[in-house]
Amino acid sequence: MAKEKKLVEAITSMNEDFAQWYTDVVKKAELIDYSSVKGCMIIKPDGYAIWENIQAELDRRFKETGVENVYMPMFIPESLLNKEKDHVEGFAPEVAWVTHGGSNPLQERLCVRPTSETLFCDFYRNLIQSYRDLPKLYNQWCSVVRWEKETRPFLRSREFLWQEGHTAHATAEEAEERTVQMLHVYADFCEEVLAIPVVRGKKTEKEKFAGAEATYTIEALMHDGKALQSGTSHNFGDGFAKAFGIQYTDRDNQLKYVHQTSWGMTTRLIGAVIMVHGDDSGLVLPPEIAPTQVMVIPVQQHKEGVLEKAAEIRERLFAFGVRTKLDDTEKSPGWKFSEQEMRGIPIRIEIGPKDMEAGQCVLVRRDTREKTIVALEELESRAKELLKNIQNDLFARAKAHRDAHIYDAHSYEEFTECVTEKQGFIRGMWCGDQACEDKIKEEFAATARCMPFDDKEEIASVCVCCGRPAHKLVYWGKAY
Amino acid sequence: MAKEKKLVEAITSMNEDFAQWYTDVVKKAELIDYSSVKGCMIIKPDGYAIWENIQAELDRRFKETGVENVYMPMFIPESLLNKEKDHVEGFAPEVAWVTHGGSNPLQERLCVRPTSETLFCDFYRNLIQSYRDLPKLYNQWCSVVRWEKETRPFLRSREFLWQEGHTAHATAEEAEERTVQMLHVYADFCEEVLAIPVVRGKKTEKEKFAGAEATYTIEALMHDGKALQSGTSHNFGDGFAKAFGIQYTDRDNQLKYVHQTSWGMTTRLIGAVIMVHGDDSGLVLPPEIAPTQVMVIPVQQHKEGVLEKAAEIRERLFAFGVRTKLDDTEKSPGWKFSEQEMRGIPIRIEIGPKDMEAGQCVLVRRDTREKTIVALEELESRAKELLKNIQNDLFARAKAHRDAHIYDAHSYEEFTECVTEKQGFIRGMWCGDQACEDKIKEEFAATARCMPFDDKEEIASVCVCCGRPAHKLVYWGKAY
Repeated sequence: MAKEKKLVEAITSMNEDFAQWYTDVVKKAELIDYSSVKGCMIIKPDGYAIWENIQAELDRRFKETGVENVYMPMFIPESLLNKEKDHVEGFAPEVAWVTHGGSNPLQERLCVRPTSETLFCDFYRNLIQSYRDLPKLYNQWCSVVRWEKETRPFLRSREFLWQEGHTAHATAEEAEERTVQMLHVYADFCEEVLAIPVVRGKKTEKEKFAGAEATYTIEALMHDGKALQSGTSHNFGDGFAKAFGIQYTDRDNQLKYVHQTSWGMTTRLIGAVIMVHGDDSGLVLPPEIAPTQVMVIPVQQHKEGVLEKAAEIRERLFAFGVRTKLDDTEKSPGWKFSEQEMRGIPIRIEIGPKDMEAGQCVLVRRDTREKTIVALEELESRAKELLKNIQNDLFARAKAHRDAHIYDAHSYEEFTECVTEKQGFIRGMWCGDQACEDKIKEEFAATARCMPFDDKEEIASVCVCCGRPAHKLVYWGKAY
Repeated sequence: MAKEKKLVEAITSMNEDFAQWYTDVVKKAELIDYSSVKGCMIIKPDGYAIWENIQAELDRRFKETGVENVYMPMFIPESLLNKEKDHVEGFAPEVAWVTHGGSNPLQERLCVRPTSETLFCDFYRNLIQSYRDLPKLYNQWCSVVRWEKETRPFLRSREFLWQEGHTAHATAEEAEERTVQMLHVYADFCEEVLAIPVVRGKKTEKEKFAGAEATYTIEALMHDGKALQSGTSHNFGDGFAKAFGIQYTDRDNQLKYVHQTSWGMTTRLIGAVIMVHGDDSGLVLPPEIAPTQVMVIPVQQHKEGVLEKAAEIRERLFAFGVRTKLDDTEKSPGWKFSEQEMRGIPIRIEIGPKDMEAGQCVLVRRDTREKTIVALEELESRAKELLKNIQNDLFARAKAHRDAHIYDAHSYEEFTECVTEKQGFIRGMWCGDQACEDKIKEEFAATARCMPFDDKEEIASVCVCCGRPAHKLVYWGKAY
């Protein structure tokens, strides 16, 4: 019993110290390990399997919209990175530089890609000649490097995994349409698959991507009331095309610049899942992305027939398309329960001699701990139904929590009160002046998370910062 | 007609200049493009989709044997790379060094991983404490960098995609068993999926991996008679474990070193597919890995109902699980045929007004160009059957070609004749002395490809190089 307590006690309570709770969960749930390279993490089997599930589903959704995958080199020559002025200013301070190949110094330094706009532009310049070559809808799955000073597993690490889509279009309208389309792909994915509600909107000029004309974002609220930017989609207009000379001959025989977009999602999503759904017993995974959806745990497994019956349950569910495992190790059932809870496995099935006698087993939900007794003949359908309910309930619970942490501020005084005393999104009007954003960031460490698409109401007529007339509604918040 | 001829004429004949033919095919079949980073390639949609198909099937086979995926950092601190002597000597001359993060010099240089043995060892040292923690069967899919001087698309590039499996075991026997098991997974995959026959065997001491006790290999024969090492599996014994201090407490309470393996396959496999199956019209893809298995090409598509019928055929096959596309562009049918052949799409379906009248369509095999008239009601079953036949025939043809290019040499004279006048594998006995390997390499640029598992016959009693007594049968060859 001492050992079992230890596993549970090892996690800090989330209300006591949310940051420490997070660090405890990523380690104890065996999602990551630290490596000997500062700021780079090892993604362990359970962490990587979550990423594989995210990848498979996102990739399917991309391909449905006509996107094709490619692979670009991981290195960018310095001269290529320097071609677009805003872009290089945004990224150069945090890139890793390769200076030697073997024992020879390179003629030109190469940076390890922090993002691949410049490589795609260089590629598109040669590839695109005619309107017949458009649009190009390419994506790649890879890792990128940003030499951050402070790092946290999944949320901010020097190397992380992501996908980056890069498209080229004949017209500005098409590019804008694709930028918004991909944002909705991201938002739907977050809500339907990760069970995380998001606010869809546009970034301010200050917060947009280096080199973009417009950046769209989805913003999620973590359990501690801080925001997490969970996916962004950028419209570059013809800025990169002009810097790189990407032109095509249109139907009217005129030479025109293409219009481009890019959009990305990262392993940071795993951090979002942890911080939205997790609790003091550890991880809570939405069934859609859980590497293991059901863990079968035999009770009194030394008794005749128990292990066989547990194995049979595992086999039946597995054959039914449920990702199921059996824990038949020598550990005690209590220890196994704690492990299953820590790892966030959505359902555990308890089966012992008494259940066998009654022709039943016990399904326990990870999220609510609710127990359901299920007749063995109904096992498959009931397990699948329960997984569906858990998925839906996780979303509903996260949405209720998020909605309960959105505050309206109509003036500077109300804004100050919200931002200092509450944790969550603050809805407040903004005049459009960057000086106000700067002031709010400096005073409160809060930023304009986004100007929402679907919420254009003017909750007040003046800017929450300067009191001048304002027509833009902004979601403000402190962010990861 | 001029345009159509151009596409075909653009390829060098393989008998005229095999190297140029290869370069033409990778470009014209749109598998790769060159990038502005010397020696690094861009993998285009068709090339990447082949890799995705290879990945999916290999990954499935790995997981069936209990392997789990993880992700390790792409950087290795110099001190970590230096821990195993043979290993660092093998790789240090060809690694890319990162020396700066942003504008600051790093305290310690980091190399971009050329392979990840050292990272896995560092990880395992902390992870493995007890016999209960064993075995560890981890794999990762990633890109690696080796600063090669001469590069060729897929075959040898400075960055390439691969998987690297790294396992740790309690005993030497288990490690040896896993090493050989994975080699057979590779070999079966090559034969069943890529339709490439391979020789399975062991590398000589000279040819083994830097730091390994034993390296096993599968060797394939390209159309030009040169060998391609297509996958390797290494048994490290406890060498790395001793260098890194990876110990576990066994059941008997004794502290013991683990025994390790690693095994890898790369995008080089795509090069093998090209060079084994391709012909003077371009790529020929085995149906199992073809991104598009069937291309539907309407004939006289301006005639009423033709495009609709072609679309219907595409829909029906797609719904039946056949990867099918429709080419409804404005190009001429002849031009489309050439493109489909260049891209190696296993079957094209021709459908025109006369076929519609007769309730049929024409299936044309890419490999033999054989035409089959198929009644539309039998479309799905006949197409699937034909894909299966193509897959089998490609293997049979490659095997016949390979077997016809294996030569037995019983003496130095016969060896000299074979290696200078024939193209293929040369079977010849070897005394076991590395001096003989060195001599053969220097004189003929040929190497010991492997000592085969399944062919232990002694075809002669003396070494093909020195004439001394010899008991080891070796497949010799010139290799990519």
